[in-house]
Amino acid sequence: MSYPASPITTYLDDLASNKPAPGGGSGAALAGALGAALGSMVANFTVGKEKFAAVEERAKTALGECERLRGELTNLIQADVEAYGKYAEASRLPRDTEEQKARRRAAIQEAMKGAAAVPMEVCRKGRELLKVCQELLEIGNPNLVSDVGCAAELAFAAIGSALLNVEVNHAFLKDEQYITAQKKELEPLLTSAQQMRDSVYNETRKRIRE
Amino acid sequence: MSYPASPITTYLDDLASNKPAPGGGSGAALAGALGAALGSMVANFTVGKEKFAAVEERAKTALGECERLRGELTNLIQADVEAYGKYAEASRLPRDTEEQKARRRAAIQEAMKGAAAVPMEVCRKGRELLKVCQELLEIGNPNLVSDVGCAAELAFAAIGSALLNVEVNHAFLKDEQYITAQKKELEPLLTSAQQMRDSVYNETRKRIRE
Repeated sequence: MSYPASPITTYLDDLASNKPAPGGGSGAALAGALGAALGSMVANFTVGKEKFAAVEERAKTALGECERLRGELTNLIQADVEAYGKYAEASRLPRDTEEQKARRRAAIQEAMKGAAAVPMEVCRKGRELLKVCQELLEIGNPNLVSDVGCAAELAFAAIGSALLNVEVNHAFLKDEQYITAQKKELEPLLTSAQQMRDSVYNETRKRIRE
Repeated sequence: MSYPASPITTYLDDLASNKPAPGGGSGAALAGALGAALGSMVANFTVGKEKFAAVEERAKTALGECERLRGELTNLIQADVEAYGKYAEASRLPRDTEEQKARRRAAIQEAMKGAAAVPMEVCRKGRELLKVCQELLEIGNPNLVSDVGCAAELAFAAIGSALLNVEVNHAFLKDEQYITAQKKELEPLLTSAQQMRDSVYNETRKRIRE
């Protein structure tokens, strides 16, 4: 069963239920996909219009970027659910002998790395999307400026939500090198994402009010 | 056609396309519904558990609130699309005589009030959800603390995105009293929402790292 192909209400029902997945990591990916779709909308109202002929190539590139990110983030909605499935599978491994216990522990650690890798990807894609939002603020059809602001807000929420899901997995991981590498990447990513979100959002509000 | 009953990918395709609706206001409502669903998930992993018997009634209340908000925000996904439809309908009214022109102008203004009312509701529901997140941070199953943080992040993104869509309509509305009343409500709403989001989010990260 694939969530992206399911009705929105089915996804929301399962998210709300006492099933362990989908959870916050998957929801974060969907928030990011919503942001990417809004970016595409802005680009789609810019590409091919006489009025914006001077930025045609840049608008086409932005559209391509948003569509790529939308596809990737949509896949991550499901990947997060499957990563949890692998963790649950590892937890069910037998643990009668010492050898089995060791094998189970290793499988759980491996599955948890996979579970951290998915929201990590959501964070990266979210920041890429924020960069495209900066470009769309500059070249996009100004009638859709509010949608650029929404795209940035949703991209940032995807990052903020996914980050918590990376950190939750860190709490149970024993590979310090793996944790340190992710932390080193995440801290500046979050700082720059917050700055990009704030600058796009505030500029959007300013232009709406002008 | 109802978007909440449609596959996620269909909604994302239409959001990304050069159709004027769905747009940012509808996407904001969906982000809020995602947050409410995650709040319900946390409550569902708290209610009925021996370990959390002391907060059983409060957890049940929080669950009821999240489910109500999820239903309302899900309806607003579609309401925003329909509000745009009414505006488009008003724009197509005949404008050959002075009388027709006046009637069309009035119909457009009325439709725009409706189009501002939907994201206004998303802002209100988003703030209600942030209040429930504060409660869930206090009483919810601590194993799901990251989901409380995600719910707050998504609720805030719903408010931030919806706010831009209220303000876009203000730019074209002529009823100053209507605009002033909404602005008066929105400014403190946004300030308190930002504070609630920051406090829930930062406390969530702290607990994950503990």
